[in-house]
This record gives sequence, C-alpha cells and structure tokens, in this order.
Amino acid sequence: MIIDCHGHYTTAPEPHQKFREAQLVRIKDSTLPAATPVRIGDDEIRESIETNQLRLQRERGADLTLFSPRASAMGHHVGDESVSLAWTRACNDLVKRVVDLYPQNFVGVCQLPQSPGVPIAHSVHELTRCVRDLGFVGCNLNPDPSGGHWNSPPLTDRHWYPFYEAMVELDVPAMIHVSASCNANFHATGAHYINADTTAFMQFIQGDLFRDFPTLRFIIPHGGGAVPYHWGRYRGLADMLERPPLDSHVMRNVFFDTCVYHQPGIDLLVDVIDIDNILFGSEMLGAVRGIDPQTGHYFDDTRRYIDSLPVSAEAKRQIFELNARRVFPRLDALLKARGL
Amino acid sequence: MIIDCHGHYTTAPEPHQKFREAQLVRIKDSTLPAATPVRIGDDEIRESIETNQLRLQRERGADLTLFSPRASAMGHHVGDESVSLAWTRACNDLVKRVVDLYPQNFVGVCQLPQSPGVPIAHSVHELTRCVRDLGFVGCNLNPDPSGGHWNSPPLTDRHWYPFYEAMVELDVPAMIHVSASCNANFHATGAHYINADTTAFMQFIQGDLFRDFPTLRFIIPHGGGAVPYHWGRYRGLADMLERPPLDSHVMRNVFFDTCVYHQPGIDLLVDVIDIDNILFGSEMLGAVRGIDPQTGHYFDDTRRYIDSLPVSAEAKRQIFELNARRVFPRLDALLKARGL
Repeated sequence: MIIDCHGHYTTAPEPHQKFREAQLVRIKDSTLPAATPVRIGDDEIRESIETNQLRLQRERGADLTLFSPRASAMGHHVGDESVSLAWTRACNDLVKRVVDLYPQNFVGVCQLPQSPGVPIAHSVHELTRCVRDLGFVGCNLNPDPSGGHWNSPPLTDRHWYPFYEAMVELDVPAMIHVSASCNANFHATGAHYINADTTAFMQFIQGDLFRDFPTLRFIIPHGGGAVPYHWGRYRGLADMLERPPLDSHVMRNVFFDTCVYHQPGIDLLVDVIDIDNILFGSEMLGAVRGIDPQTGHYFDDTRRYIDSLPVSAEAKRQIFELNARRVFPRLDALLKARGL
Repeated sequence: MIIDCHGHYTTAPEPHQKFREAQLVRIKDSTLPAATPVRIGDDEIRESIETNQLRLQRERGADLTLFSPRASAMGHHVGDESVSLAWTRACNDLVKRVVDLYPQNFVGVCQLPQSPGVPIAHSVHELTRCVRDLGFVGCNLNPDPSGGHWNSPPLTDRHWYPFYEAMVELDVPAMIHVSASCNANFHATGAHYINADTTAFMQFIQGDLFRDFPTLRFIIPHGGGAVPYHWGRYRGLADMLERPPLDSHVMRNVFFDTCVYHQPGIDLLVDVIDIDNILFGSEMLGAVRGIDPQTGHYFDDTRRYIDSLPVSAEAKRQIFELNARRVFPRLDALLKARGL
C-alpha cells in the first residue's frame, strides 16, 4: 500500500477562490456584509479531483493521499482572526467533501485558523472539530503565521503548548508548513518553505520540547529542508550545544517526507536518515509541476525515486506505508477498520 | 595547492572584543566618548593564529586561507552606521595584520560597514580601501543586515547595484554571509546561515541580476544552503517561472563552498553541481568545532571529504585551487607574482 503523506487541494473549484476574494474585498471595506462560502457542486469537486490529484495518484500508483488545503493559500497573515477562521473552516469542509466522495483515495488533514498575535489555543477548537467530527488524522501547523516576518516565538516556546496538549490528547501529528510569503526576500516554495523546515529542526535541537511532550510528533516536509544535506552540521551543533544525540533528542518525534525532486537528494535522505523517520510524500499537485528534462518524468513523481533505491522491500514498505500508519494512528485505525 | 576560501578570525585577541564591548556600552550611554580600538600586540595575534587556524591549516594540509573577520560578530544590526563602520574597520585592519604576519598562509577578505536602512553605496569606500590599500581579494556581503528580520530588498533589487558596480570595477567576488541572528526563531549557524544561502539562490533564479552584471560573482557558503539537496526543485522552479536553465541563468556567476560536514553531503554536492562551481572551504574555526564520533575526525575537516571523492585528480585540483583562482582574480595575480 502506498500512502502519500503530503498532498494539497491546489485545484479547488473556482467558487472557493471567489469566497476568498470576497473576504479580501471586505477586509478593505468593512461596511460590506461578511463573505460567506459559495456553494460548490459535487460535480465541480469531482472534476477538479479526477482530472488532477486522482488521475496522478492512479498514474503513479499511489493508493491514498493525506489531503489538506492548499498550503500557500492558507494565508494566515491575511485579515484578522475571524477572516482566518472563516477561510479555514471553508477549506477544511471542502477537503472533507473530497474525502467523502473518494474515501478510498483521500484522508483529511486540516488547516488551522492561525492569525498573527492570536494565541494558538484558539486553533484547538478547529483541530478538534476536524479530527472528531470530520475524521481528519492530522493538521498543518504554521510556525510563521506572519508570512515571512517570523515574529512568533519558536516552536519550542510555551506559547505553543496549549496546541501540543490538544495534539497529544487527540493523538494526531502536525506537519510543520508555512504558507505564502509576503516578504519579498522569500519565494514561497523556493525559499520560505525550505527555510521553515530547516528553522523548525534547529529549534527542536535547541529546545527540550519532547521531554515535555514525549509522544508529540511532527513531520518536517520537503525532505526536512536543508537538514539531511547538512546532517553532519546538525549532529555537530547538538554536540557543541551540549544537547543529547539527535536520535534520542529529536528523531523519536520528528519525521521527514520525500518531497525532494531528484534521485541524488532522495539517495542522500535515505543514506543519512533512519528509514523509520521517512514518510513517502509528493506535495502534489504542488510546488513543481513540470517534467525533468534529465529524466523525462515529472519532478514531483517521487515514487520513482523511492522505487529506485537500493534498499530492501521491507524498507520501502516502511517509507510507503508503515511509517505513515505509525505516525498517524488515526489513519492506521481507519485502515484497519477497512481490513487493510 | 590547497586554498580554503572560507576562514574567519574567530579567535581574535581579547582587546578586540573589549573594543566591541566599549562600543556596546556607548550605544546605551551616548555621553561617553566614542570607543576606539584597543592596541593589540603582534605576539597576541601570533598566538591566537598559531594555536588555532595556522595549526589546523598545517595539520589538515591546506596551504592558504581566504581570511575574513568573524561572521557572527559582524553584527550589522548593532548600533548605527558609525558603530558599524568603526567596528568593521577595526576587524578588517586586524585581518590585515594577520595577513602581514603570515602572508604565505592568509589572504584578506573584508567585512562591510553595512547598517539597516543605510544605502549600500556607503560600503563602497571600505571595500575599495580593503582591496586597493590592504590587498584584500574579496568581501562578505550580508543580505540581511537586520540580523534575522529580513527587511532589506532582495539581492537582485537595484538597491544593491551601486555595490555591485564597485565589485565589478575592482574585480572581486562577494561571499553572501549573514551575521548573528537577533530573531529567536533562527539559530545563527544552524538556521540563519543556511536559510540565507537558500534564500539568496532563489532570489537569483527569480531575478535577472547577471544579465545586468555578467561578470559579477558570488560564493554561496555552507555548500549552497539547501540548494544542492533540492537541485531538482530549483531546476523545476526555474522552468515553472519561465527562467532560463540554471547553468546559463545563475551558475556562471554563483559558486558553492564545501562547508558541508559529512561525506554524504559532499558526495551529493559534487554529484549534482558542476565541478567548476565548487570551491574548497572549511569555515574553520567556525560553526562546528567538535569531532564526529562516526568518523573520529573533526566535522569541519572538509579536506578529508574531498580527498575521498571518486573524482579525478584534475577535478580535485579545481575544487582545491583552480576555481578559487578563477573566482578571485586578485588572488590569482598575487599567487602568480609569487611564482605560484
């Protein structure tokens, strides 16, 4: 079984974007009535999925995608908390409709109604709703809701603890995932995403978060940012900072996906990071949509890179399926209930 | 010949730090007289170098280090332009004294008197002084003088052009190097440095800087940040953004050093990046000072990783010597004048 732990609904039907645009208009003119989600037909959803994510899932031979709203459109920096909440609910509800239409192919992961300066405790309710009421199995947590100004406390700060308590209680992991960048220095998918991944990992080295939350689990996407490439640096920094070795200090709780779009990168990932810590992911349809002229295949067809690895079938099964089931226990329960 | 393109004077004698401390005190109490550099004896400099950088250079078999002031201490965000200028001059003058004491072993690379919000043209004078008067061959350019707030324009913005014009005229490259982070999210050497490297590269993809400055040259340190590990992503993003292929668009002007502290990282670097674009560097004495328990050798003894590469002797000579001489023409001229 092949589980893609990192897929986004980047192809949502147009009415969904219309709602967002109405929100943006109302931010500038508060005399307008509050925007409300526009009705979207099942057929529109079916078409958007069947011609895109579902088609690619089938073509590339994946079975199931952990599916969340488009990350770059989360836009936590836009408007205020009420704008973020209304948008987030609409995004999550739309993912739920995809899951209901294709329950064998998609399982939900939720966006959070974060907003700069707003306590993270305010996101607990939406997490709980998505997990308990909608059957979602995880969430995307934005370490920088400002969109590139990085003025929230580090992820190891007690600021975040109320949310971690809810994650532990619900037994769901979070993928650490920023959204769009409104800082001209940072291209979203080319710099902001990768920097956030690297930044989060280093914060975990500096802090003691997993002493306080031994069962808390994070996926750092995009292959862990720069971390595996600089694995020697991080092992050395842990030592210099008198932190415990990374395996016990961080790697019981932190996992990397395989959204690394060339074979040498995946080879390195699997070379330096324990197989237990690697989850198959493609980020599709996502950051990079083209065909690699060097291979003739899509950059984000990451299954090919895993298939080509010189590792055992059992190791590949861990990457493709077993690690995801361990990191997302609610996914495992759901699959077991289906006899899988 | 082995040229280390990335070494810092991280072990400057105590009086140098005393001067900095006096500056910091005066920032808080402007009624005090301006701080002035404290006298440092040649013997103090000799001891600080011979027991550290020179000892390691000899032990590890390098011949010459391109030597610049401690990057994390540049502290461009501290005080105002006059503070930055006084500190920068003192730092560069101290490097010049090291070079004068050990001309066979060290060649100078300068710090710049950058300061947040101050036009970069104000750094041209110190660059010119260091190159023309002190014989330095390059500089370290900080893309984020705010120290982690990232509120300067991207490196491709015309904001930076007056400085690039001076670099071209003097025929010196810049290493893109941030300093300390005053943003709690970013550990300096574990996140801020690596993020800056990744960020700069993506800016070069987005922009057209090298059309305007075809001979401008940058070294992106720390192995290019996350870039080689995500080389497929960057090739794909260039394609998606309808930019030219990276070899012609960026890689005629951008070079990566080898400050990647484990063999798999160096293997990947050399696998995906053209040999012409890789310059030997160690960052010593720098970010990571310990011994890797997996190898029994220092993490930052990067010569070992290059020595172990399955590439030709000619390729190693490019990495160790020839590329540095091409990217730093003033270094090449200096070596040629010595019959080297």
